[in-house]
Amino acid sequence: MIDLLKIEKQFISSHIKEGGTVVDFTMGNGHDTLWLSKAVGKNGKVYAFDIQKEAIESTAKLLEKENADKNYTLILDSHHNVKNYVKEPICAGMFNLGYLPGGDKTITTLHQTSLQAMTAGIELLAPDGAILCAVYPGHVEGTVEGNLIEDFLSTLDRRLFCATKFKIVNSPTSPFFFLIEKK
Amino acid sequence: MIDLLKIEKQFISSHIKEGGTVVDFTMGNGHDTLWLSKAVGKNGKVYAFDIQKEAIESTAKLLEKENADKNYTLILDSHHNVKNYVKEPICAGMFNLGYLPGGDKTITTLHQTSLQAMTAGIELLAPDGAILCAVYPGHVEGTVEGNLIEDFLSTLDRRLFCATKFKIVNSPTSPFFFLIEKK
Repeated sequence: MIDLLKIEKQFISSHIKEGGTVVDFTMGNGHDTLWLSKAVGKNGKVYAFDIQKEAIESTAKLLEKENADKNYTLILDSHHNVKNYVKEPICAGMFNLGYLPGGDKTITTLHQTSLQAMTAGIELLAPDGAILCAVYPGHVEGTVEGNLIEDFLSTLDRRLFCATKFKIVNSPTSPFFFLIEKK
Repeated sequence: MIDLLKIEKQFISSHIKEGGTVVDFTMGNGHDTLWLSKAVGKNGKVYAFDIQKEAIESTAKLLEKENADKNYTLILDSHHNVKNYVKEPICAGMFNLGYLPGGDKTITTLHQTSLQAMTAGIELLAPDGAILCAVYPGHVEGTVEGNLIEDFLSTLDRRLFCATKFKIVNSPTSPFFFLIEKK
């Protein structure tokens, strides 16, 4: 059986370069931050964003526990301000749109800022860079975000980008994925 | 860059068993028939369907030229009659919905019969079997077919099947894919 979660990691992996710069746009509990930290290695750089202090704290704890290289910067700010912090091209970015797992479910990523963050992330992409975006349509905000992002991605110039969608059609509340690759 | 054509072959490959039975629902020029013939090997069985005599002829020629095992049956009939010919469970089925490449573009797969063929194909699936369906939205009938099939797939019981869609969202005329896996 297809494991979309595994597949998406494979797809984004092929774009991540050791020593490269990557962004975790939605830090949450830091599992992707840790994964990215390992992927770019000790000469790489990971910028991770969250607006919740508890996300920063639990991510810092996880990274220390796992002896991650000190290649990360955890930023308590909205991901749509990414360009205030990241000044160089990135080889990968990751979004998990929705609420912090185990946290306050009323604090979701807000679709206005998600779209701004996505736009900024795409502008930051190096050639052959890619952004992976998981959308959780199990709550209202997730569905709105997914539709907005799909509408936006469908306007990207196909000579410059390839934006692919992966979705389980007979399980409408399952997460689905966008992969945006820069040519 | 993602190569959907390559990915789809990988996905369906993992379901094909040597010695198994498979169906090419849209024979066309026989490239998938040949690929399936190799995949199931000399103890396997390939049933391939087309309503155009020239498809049968060019496929027969291709299979002979490539020294394919004599594990195939080429059937000049609509794929929605599949159950008249295939009586055993299948481990894989392939659909390429659209016109015969290089042939008469007014003869497309007709969406009514495509949906019937897809339904029959799904009913024939063995456990862990899968159907791969490529849709070509570059012509009107392709778009109608794609929407009809997606509507149908979205009704499949998720406890029994997983139906995934792969689509390039910023290239509306590019082919997209459905993978239907039986649990």
